[in-house]
Amino acid sequence: MSKFLGKQAASLTPYTPGEQPQDRRYIKLNTNECPYPPSPLVAKALAEDDAGNYRLYPDPTAGALRQKLAEHYGVAPNQVFVGNGSDEVLAFAFFAFFDRGDKISFPDPSYGFYPVYADLCGLNANPIPLKDDFTIDPNDFAKCDGNIIIANPNAPTGLWLERNQIEQILAANPDRLVMIDEAYADFANEGVDSLPLLPRHENLLIIGTFSKSRAFAGLRLGYAISTPEIIAELERIRYSFNPYNVSRPTQLAGVASLEDETHFQWTLEKVKATRERVTARLRELGLDVLPSATNFLFVTHPRLDGRELYLALRENGILVRCFDHPRTLRHARISVGSDEEMDALLSVIEKL
Amino acid sequence: MSKFLGKQAASLTPYTPGEQPQDRRYIKLNTNECPYPPSPLVAKALAEDDAGNYRLYPDPTAGALRQKLAEHYGVAPNQVFVGNGSDEVLAFAFFAFFDRGDKISFPDPSYGFYPVYADLCGLNANPIPLKDDFTIDPNDFAKCDGNIIIANPNAPTGLWLERNQIEQILAANPDRLVMIDEAYADFANEGVDSLPLLPRHENLLIIGTFSKSRAFAGLRLGYAISTPEIIAELERIRYSFNPYNVSRPTQLAGVASLEDETHFQWTLEKVKATRERVTARLRELGLDVLPSATNFLFVTHPRLDGRELYLALRENGILVRCFDHPRTLRHARISVGSDEEMDALLSVIEKL
Repeated sequence: MSKFLGKQAASLTPYTPGEQPQDRRYIKLNTNECPYPPSPLVAKALAEDDAGNYRLYPDPTAGALRQKLAEHYGVAPNQVFVGNGSDEVLAFAFFAFFDRGDKISFPDPSYGFYPVYADLCGLNANPIPLKDDFTIDPNDFAKCDGNIIIANPNAPTGLWLERNQIEQILAANPDRLVMIDEAYADFANEGVDSLPLLPRHENLLIIGTFSKSRAFAGLRLGYAISTPEIIAELERIRYSFNPYNVSRPTQLAGVASLEDETHFQWTLEKVKATRERVTARLRELGLDVLPSATNFLFVTHPRLDGRELYLALRENGILVRCFDHPRTLRHARISVGSDEEMDALLSVIEKL
Repeated sequence: MSKFLGKQAASLTPYTPGEQPQDRRYIKLNTNECPYPPSPLVAKALAEDDAGNYRLYPDPTAGALRQKLAEHYGVAPNQVFVGNGSDEVLAFAFFAFFDRGDKISFPDPSYGFYPVYADLCGLNANPIPLKDDFTIDPNDFAKCDGNIIIANPNAPTGLWLERNQIEQILAANPDRLVMIDEAYADFANEGVDSLPLLPRHENLLIIGTFSKSRAFAGLRLGYAISTPEIIAELERIRYSFNPYNVSRPTQLAGVASLEDETHFQWTLEKVKATRERVTARLRELGLDVLPSATNFLFVTHPRLDGRELYLALRENGILVRCFDHPRTLRHARISVGSDEEMDALLSVIEKL
């Protein structure tokens, strides 16, 4: 540790991302990447862009991309914000809507970055335990005395709140910002995403990502949708941090992805079909599998705990994720890969 | 303003980037973009990458890119950090090496983002006025009672400190971090960049960008070079904010750019030759032009103040930048464009 490190920075416990082996020897079912490539229109848009344009700064307002997102979601462009992945959007939201010492409530376990951002911003983190069956009880979020963030569907469980349950939380906290992190919502059925609640709840901030359902993990694109006021306040932070946060290729790629609804829907249907098939087969093999509205499965093996299952699969060339959280030591999180990848997984589990 | 905005966020004065008209009707000499495209190897590397790879997260350690940067600068890979443009690197450094209320000193005027970051981190900003001739006096930074950031060469002046003057500041502040922002250093002559000082000054953090000299403004790539300890501390912040901060295409593009030293040197020589030619001609036309070690010129017109010159040029289809700072109301900053662009500028100025 250098003598220059700040006290607050020294006290942080950074996030640990999933393994990203660069040699690609593994079947990667550990970071919820999409098994299918992005729309061919994405590759086409990037190939057709003149490389001479890279010398120019990207549009700091990301005008064309926000216009396209606005059309896609049926909102106005000034209700849309874009960032360098949804992690950046989340970080900006923490900087915009909290002061040091403020309380923030979130389900526990959930996305491991929420307590990290709380730490980074000097907040008073209030993790609210999931029920024994790993569901979220909206009543637990009725009187939070501070802003709220909920991943819906939740990670690593894959479980979800219905839209009316989200509305219950919004209605119970009219003076608090309720951030719904919908990283996996595209994989849920109708009635989960919170967009239809926006016209009647000014305390709703929806955060989404292109990383999973649009296969953009390597291109980095996240977004937020809310009221024009809240979006303008996220922009205050962006212009105080990194106004050119989304590269030119990523802006072009985002527009192209939104122009290919067919490919998008095909990807979702394919992942959901594989998810249901593998869930059924894992249950036949004696594993416990929670219902999932995401592109991953949250499983327990009858004999192996999470870490043992992780290690056994790793030895067989398959990467999944296990956790240190006391509630999820028995669990592993397995991304829904291609049918071939999942067949390989199933045959290893059959042998175990 | 929504009722959810934090008090600290409400008090921020965000940075104002230069105009980025998206219709390209103007000759853009306002944001110091490179007039020449990046190395053809960049376009080649991006075209050859399988678009199927976009579905995968980028290497969060940016291993190949950091290795290449380390080779290029003759340091170890653990002395190199990369970010989504140097603005992000600067922001991370402010989060890593300061606690709220700490003092930070920087020249004034200089890069307009330094006071914004100071604000964002709740620091006590200590702007140190430039001398009457717009130079920085190293003696003014001898006893700063806090960390220091200096753009060298400085913006918007284009003037520079020699390496021995930087060393004087490092030696006078052994217990303080001295950040040298070398966004424009590639355009300076030998004896300006501070890299050779690193082995004997553990308080030096060098920040650089691919935006200007490598024509990467649209691709977003910045870096830092320092001791392994200081780099590890920047990584703490990155892993507490956005671990996948540099996209896959940008990592590939960065490696490709570093593999083409010939194109890089050609770009620098071309920009420097144009800069010297245009400086001489502007002086003949009666403008005052500071010597420049950058890819821009800091000029005053005998009759027009900065804003008037900006407006007159804008009317003629040329964008430059003027400033609100009381010290630079008479000045305009003109990026060094291609020879054709600069000839167009000169003929408009001849007519004025």
